[in-house]
Amino acid sequence: MPAPETPTTPSPHGVPAHGVPSHGVHSHGVHSEVGRLRKVLVCSPGLAHHRLTPTNAQDLLFDDVMWVENAQRDHADFVRLMRERGIEVVELHELIAQTMAIPEARRWLLDRRITANEIGLGLVDGTRAFLDALSPEALAEHLIGGLAVDDLPEDHRSGYLALARESPGAREYLMPPLPNTLYTRDTTSWLYGGVTLNPLYWPARHDETLLMKAVYVFHPDFADSTVWWGDPEQDWRRATLEGGDVMPVGNGVVLVGMSERTSRQAISQLAAALFRAGAAERVIVAGMPKLRAAMHLDTVFTFADRDVVTVYPRIVDGIHTISLRPGDGPTGIEVTDDGHRPFPDVVAEALGLPGLHVVETGGDVYASERQQWDSGNNAVALEPGVVVTYDRNTQTNALLRKAGIEVITIVGAELGRGRGGGHCMTCPLARDPVDF
Amino acid sequence: MPAPETPTTPSPHGVPAHGVPSHGVHSHGVHSEVGRLRKVLVCSPGLAHHRLTPTNAQDLLFDDVMWVENAQRDHADFVRLMRERGIEVVELHELIAQTMAIPEARRWLLDRRITANEIGLGLVDGTRAFLDALSPEALAEHLIGGLAVDDLPEDHRSGYLALARESPGAREYLMPPLPNTLYTRDTTSWLYGGVTLNPLYWPARHDETLLMKAVYVFHPDFADSTVWWGDPEQDWRRATLEGGDVMPVGNGVVLVGMSERTSRQAISQLAAALFRAGAAERVIVAGMPKLRAAMHLDTVFTFADRDVVTVYPRIVDGIHTISLRPGDGPTGIEVTDDGHRPFPDVVAEALGLPGLHVVETGGDVYASERQQWDSGNNAVALEPGVVVTYDRNTQTNALLRKAGIEVITIVGAELGRGRGGGHCMTCPLARDPVDF
Amino acid sequence: MPAPETPTTPSPHGVPAHGVPSHGVHSHGVHSEVGRLRKVLVCSPGLAHHRLTPTNAQDLLFDDVMWVENAQRDHADFVRLMRERGIEVVELHELIAQTMAIPEARRWLLDRRITANEIGLGLVDGTRAFLDALSPEALAEHLIGGLAVDDLPEDHRSGYLALARESPGAREYLMPPLPNTLYTRDTTSWLYGGVTLNPLYWPARHDETLLMKAVYVFHPDFADSTVWWGDPEQDWRRATLEGGDVMPVGNGVVLVGMSERTSRQAISQLAAALFRAGAAERVIVAGMPKLRAAMHLDTVFTFADRDVVTVYPRIVDGIHTISLRPGDGPTGIEVTDDGHRPFPDVVAEALGLPGLHVVETGGDVYASERQQWDSGNNAVALEPGVVVTYDRNTQTNALLRKAGIEVITIVGAELGRGRGGGHCMTCPLARDPVDF
Amino acid sequence: MPAPETPTTPSPHGVPAHGVPSHGVHSHGVHSEVGRLRKVLVCSPGLAHHRLTPTNAQDLLFDDVMWVENAQRDHADFVRLMRERGIEVVELHELIAQTMAIPEARRWLLDRRITANEIGLGLVDGTRAFLDALSPEALAEHLIGGLAVDDLPEDHRSGYLALARESPGAREYLMPPLPNTLYTRDTTSWLYGGVTLNPLYWPARHDETLLMKAVYVFHPDFADSTVWWGDPEQDWRRATLEGGDVMPVGNGVVLVGMSERTSRQAISQLAAALFRAGAAERVIVAGMPKLRAAMHLDTVFTFADRDVVTVYPRIVDGIHTISLRPGDGPTGIEVTDDGHRPFPDVVAEALGLPGLHVVETGGDVYASERQQWDSGNNAVALEPGVVVTYDRNTQTNALLRKAGIEVITIVGAELGRGRGGGHCMTCPLARDPVDF
Repeated sequence: MPAPETPTTPSPHGVPAHGVPSHGVHSHGVHSEVGRLRKVLVCSPGLAHHRLTPTNAQDLLFDDVMWVENAQRDHADFVRLMRERGIEVVELHELIAQTMAIPEARRWLLDRRITANEIGLGLVDGTRAFLDALSPEALAEHLIGGLAVDDLPEDHRSGYLALARESPGAREYLMPPLPNTLYTRDTTSWLYGGVTLNPLYWPARHDETLLMKAVYVFHPDFADSTVWWGDPEQDWRRATLEGGDVMPVGNGVVLVGMSERTSRQAISQLAAALFRAGAAERVIVAGMPKLRAAMHLDTVFTFADRDVVTVYPRIVDGIHTISLRPGDGPTGIEVTDDGHRPFPDVVAEALGLPGLHVVETGGDVYASERQQWDSGNNAVALEPGVVVTYDRNTQTNALLRKAGIEVITIVGAELGRGRGGGHCMTCPLARDPVDF
Repeated sequence: MPAPETPTTPSPHGVPAHGVPSHGVHSHGVHSEVGRLRKVLVCSPGLAHHRLTPTNAQDLLFDDVMWVENAQRDHADFVRLMRERGIEVVELHELIAQTMAIPEARRWLLDRRITANEIGLGLVDGTRAFLDALSPEALAEHLIGGLAVDDLPEDHRSGYLALARESPGAREYLMPPLPNTLYTRDTTSWLYGGVTLNPLYWPARHDETLLMKAVYVFHPDFADSTVWWGDPEQDWRRATLEGGDVMPVGNGVVLVGMSERTSRQAISQLAAALFRAGAAERVIVAGMPKLRAAMHLDTVFTFADRDVVTVYPRIVDGIHTISLRPGDGPTGIEVTDDGHRPFPDVVAEALGLPGLHVVETGGDVYASERQQWDSGNNAVALEPGVVVTYDRNTQTNALLRKAGIEVITIVGAELGRGRGGGHCMTCPLARDPVDF
Repeated sequence: MPAPETPTTPSPHGVPAHGVPSHGVHSHGVHSEVGRLRKVLVCSPGLAHHRLTPTNAQDLLFDDVMWVENAQRDHADFVRLMRERGIEVVELHELIAQTMAIPEARRWLLDRRITANEIGLGLVDGTRAFLDALSPEALAEHLIGGLAVDDLPEDHRSGYLALARESPGAREYLMPPLPNTLYTRDTTSWLYGGVTLNPLYWPARHDETLLMKAVYVFHPDFADSTVWWGDPEQDWRRATLEGGDVMPVGNGVVLVGMSERTSRQAISQLAAALFRAGAAERVIVAGMPKLRAAMHLDTVFTFADRDVVTVYPRIVDGIHTISLRPGDGPTGIEVTDDGHRPFPDVVAEALGLPGLHVVETGGDVYASERQQWDSGNNAVALEPGVVVTYDRNTQTNALLRKAGIEVITIVGAELGRGRGGGHCMTCPLARDPVDF
Repeated sequence: MPAPETPTTPSPHGVPAHGVPSHGVHSHGVHSEVGRLRKVLVCSPGLAHHRLTPTNAQDLLFDDVMWVENAQRDHADFVRLMRERGIEVVELHELIAQTMAIPEARRWLLDRRITANEIGLGLVDGTRAFLDALSPEALAEHLIGGLAVDDLPEDHRSGYLALARESPGAREYLMPPLPNTLYTRDTTSWLYGGVTLNPLYWPARHDETLLMKAVYVFHPDFADSTVWWGDPEQDWRRATLEGGDVMPVGNGVVLVGMSERTSRQAISQLAAALFRAGAAERVIVAGMPKLRAAMHLDTVFTFADRDVVTVYPRIVDGIHTISLRPGDGPTGIEVTDDGHRPFPDVVAEALGLPGLHVVETGGDVYASERQQWDSGNNAVALEPGVVVTYDRNTQTNALLRKAGIEVITIVGAELGRGRGGGHCMTCPLARDPVDF
């Protein structure tokens, strides 16, 4: 199926309407990486993480199991500190529950998730009946946390459960858990005045984007949002994009990491859509070295202030930079190979800055590698010069403070086990621009 | 997208026509596992295997690299011995080339494969122009063997190639190779008078089924085939089926292994489609033990004669059997849990036989495990009591011969490195029934 | 080299003296798994854990990196709570430092560790000179924490450092870190009135036992200890024993898990040595199922009270039990295969109890697997009915409390990342018997 | 235990005699990599390879199982072609059998292999009695091929077998198989007029060197050989050396790859021993890039003629070269860091050649990687300009022929599955020098 040609607004009927500007209650829009954060989407740990075990963790893309109660406590602390600073924090379970309270939305989503392809013939009716009877809150919990064979009450069961019981791996679930919803950053990305509904790399995460489409189609706060690109009801094949690789840094520039998870097939479509809509003037592609350590660009490079970045040099020094700009040809893109010019220099120039103040991970060769692993470079800014990071990255945090950054820490003992920090766990919905 | 409700014939316009019986030139149809084989589809090793390296083999689902020239020689010997016995052998490269010689078919397939999602924006036009200029034979070779960045001639390139060169993993290909086409068994399955277009488990194999749809839609020899189930243009999510798990054993019975690669979501849809069309009366699900060693049912259990099977006991003894039969409910299926009753006994009873003669892998505990690994139990029958296996499985072959089976051997030194034998490498298109 | 024939006392000259009973300052001896704990050896996290990185963790047998400062805090809390209950806690760094303050001991140990085989010719002299100049405390830190190439000051270096810099893997260290010293349980085992110096499974841990031999040979508090079996200066080949598999449960009985890490070659030698010395009357071998999840017996089975055990049923139910008793033959052992009789029943009978109160891991199928992974069944008793476990295993802890056990918790967020709990982190030196 | 200070001759009593020059029946000695090969040690595939299974292959360091009968046929062809050229070929099973026909040798070896540490207490006597009754040939077969629990006849069994049966992994063997004996190159290395008895990296291979010590101590053809370094009765800790990394290229030069398996701790001891004995004037250390693909130097670099080498550039280009020469200091070695000067240039200069003719692996990027993997660069020279390689490396072979080399091929379909070619499978015992 070809990619959509123009920015679109999803409609309840799956047929996107064209280019209607946003008139939602909130003026969503993310105009920088460090401007004042106004509104943000997060997702608390929950049922999905109770279902993570050493056996299924790898299938569900998690490195280790976590103590869910403590992870919830630490996440609540993260939410609280943002709220205390006046940031509006939207929690995904609540957002889905609000959406599921709309009968049309519930019908739309369950029609798409409770199918023979997903649940298995013979279990569709019982599962649907069970879910239809749930409160919006309980339904949201299962949509994110999954539905095990044993969760289905006796009176909704059928002989088909015997098949499900004998199925290998994560498929023994009627709906598999979605523990990676914790990383709201990846699923949707606000880039200036519009949003992308990202086709994620691993099939185990595809349903996350469908949940978000239900929000964008039905939830009144998100109505009429401009969607630049992406639709979870299409099959995007090798065009995959994850928000951890995408940064609207301001000045009409978007950085995109080209990584294991974000492909050139997606990047070029995204650039074309942004250029067509006049939403960006340059996409800087960070060709990541072919190493597993660098999952997303934001695991090795994030902004802490308008001209301050925290960087893991061992990876960032190997980035190959390519710039995309609006052009005349049929694709509307002009490609320039910036070669191995240092990535921070290319970014600085694009922002009109003389250079970026680079704060490295810090510590000796051991500490540096350990802290990158523990999300040391995965800072999220609440406003220029104010970031949230994990408490455990004491050396990176000290260097950031020495560079004049206010560093607020949250406990990372549990949250960090999935290999994501504050940047990964936040999807900004509204953030101010900064001046350059 | 919901599963199709009735058996269908694909049409050039992607809108399936309903239930038209087959009137093709050849009377395709597979009515047993061991009746006389009349016509079969195979795929020679080729460019795709030249592109297999130790680095990309795992991404492309191969265990090891092979010496392609020798693999081709051994495969040609396999083809020759079947032709000498009067079997019509169709080779996939040739079949695709014949199909691509039909302008409408070429257009249909390239419209679906040379897209921004697959090739990447900015490379679509150059790639399409290059492929459009190729002979049908050369085009078929690249459709199966893949297209590397360096295969694209200078005058078809664009600045976008810089992105492709820096892309990690198998995605550096414009079209990735499809080396698993060697195992034609998996992609499509003739079950009695109709065929399934299987949604394969790994995304790396999805394009194989699309190639076969082009054949079924456009090639005159395959026109008007009845398709029971499956369409590679749909997204089947967790409903995946691979032909190595499917066996139309006769007497209205179909065996299906429920394995890592074949899910209950697919099995129940397939059963419903077969029952609706009156094409089968019982589907026996072999719930495989949750071990990686048992990839498909046909790696541990195949037929050698109407009542003789070759079996790897360590796995088959652990099979949990569940039977599906036509029923009254909304799904039209009645489920019976046969529990841990020995799988060969359940199969024998379904065929109306007093029992099956079970030929085990043979040898001591070491030899038995070694030979199963080397496809010892993956026999393909050319007629009742005549099978083809690899030369290296001397002990299993000796036991089959002792049981009165004529065993014809082919060289497995190279072909066997992808972990598949004669059964995996053949997709029967026409096979006679046997009496029970 | 044949195994020692009789219990021995190590002497400074490496020639063991025969069977001298212990007359040390402390009456060491461990007479049960749950009697009052009088004295215990532990090891604080330290330099070795600062040197753990995602790259070398696997070579050093750790699953993940830890936040060392917090791990130290949590470990200190563990030490404090034991001291508050009157238990004498010996810390390994301090014990090694005390030992290294004895010139003869320092010479003995460095002669054995700073060799051409370990450090590399040409670096022996500089390394030895550097270490010789260190305080006992600093030396102890490097003996446990390792010595990196860059730790060697400029004036002790030689051209050979070029070789070390280019060496791959953990061998780039002059002395590799020993992070598994955290698990003092494994290295030496007090079994009633004597101790074993265990030959550990992985070469990466062999030096741990050599450190402990220095203590037993030279430290006055450990002088004249009776050594039942083991000597790190011998090469034990396939005879390997780790303390996590060994439990002196009382009544003349020793339980030994036969696991990936503890071999029958070691178990039978240990049993022979104990029987010869009259130190035990029965060794019950727990043949662990061949699964990686069950590293040591104490990861799935520990005592909480004289007749209460905490058990992970999925593994313990599969234990195959074999009993060794003193016999007449040349080996002095009589072997009885107890078959698949439930392991707790065999143990109860050996202790003269009507049965054991079995407290399972608890929780649903997910929680149970998660808590075993997080050391839920790895309790250490401070006295009958009083155990220490990690805070995160809330369900196992609740069940223990319900069974009348006093459960004291320590923070496991960091300490638990190496996959060991309170039992693994303690090597009892003196513990009272219990009555049965 | 410190390394031996001087070149030694092993004696039956394990106490090495000092520096006696060789007066054996054959004048052993290897004076180049390409001079006329006079005598060579090989090992036919056999029982050890029948015992390789997919389950234990990794523990036994093999990548895949092989068809033993065909591997034997191909190996016999290799032996035949060497014998036809007048090369004396010694086969390891026969050599061990001849050695075991000497009662003193049999006693010596069984005393060291049939111990409580290896076999397990209680099984020593039965196993020894069984082996003592075997013919020398049958004994040799089990010494190399291993002894499974079930190989022990009923009347030699004891209750201890219950323990062995329940032991996990490769330890369920009484003596584990030694399939890597196929690669005789690794175990002992003739360097000019003397030999090394190599301490191999993996414990699973340690017994190979003990077998060879029995030969050198007792077999009349090998009596009085000069041993430069190494003794399998010592524990060499981190000093490990494998013959695939060692090349006596002539002109007093020895090349040694510093790899995963050959450590600087061993290299520097070897260099010191050679310099002390005046046996070499320069050891060139090839610091291999830290990649798994480069197991030994001879997997990426071998000689085909006096000035022709076959090279896998992707690895060899990354070699860091360091030279060791006799020096004045206490270690007798002077270290020079040659940095990243191209390795072939350093070697050429050391041989007094203007340069080396470098024949690369050949083919495109895929073929090159495939052929290196299939031992394409692992040529063994029979005389200057005449090499044996596998048939499957057609492109590397073509390039060698184009460079004027006579290339004799053997079938690699089975032999190559253990990832070693002609160079790995030969241990030259006598080879002429070449002039430079």
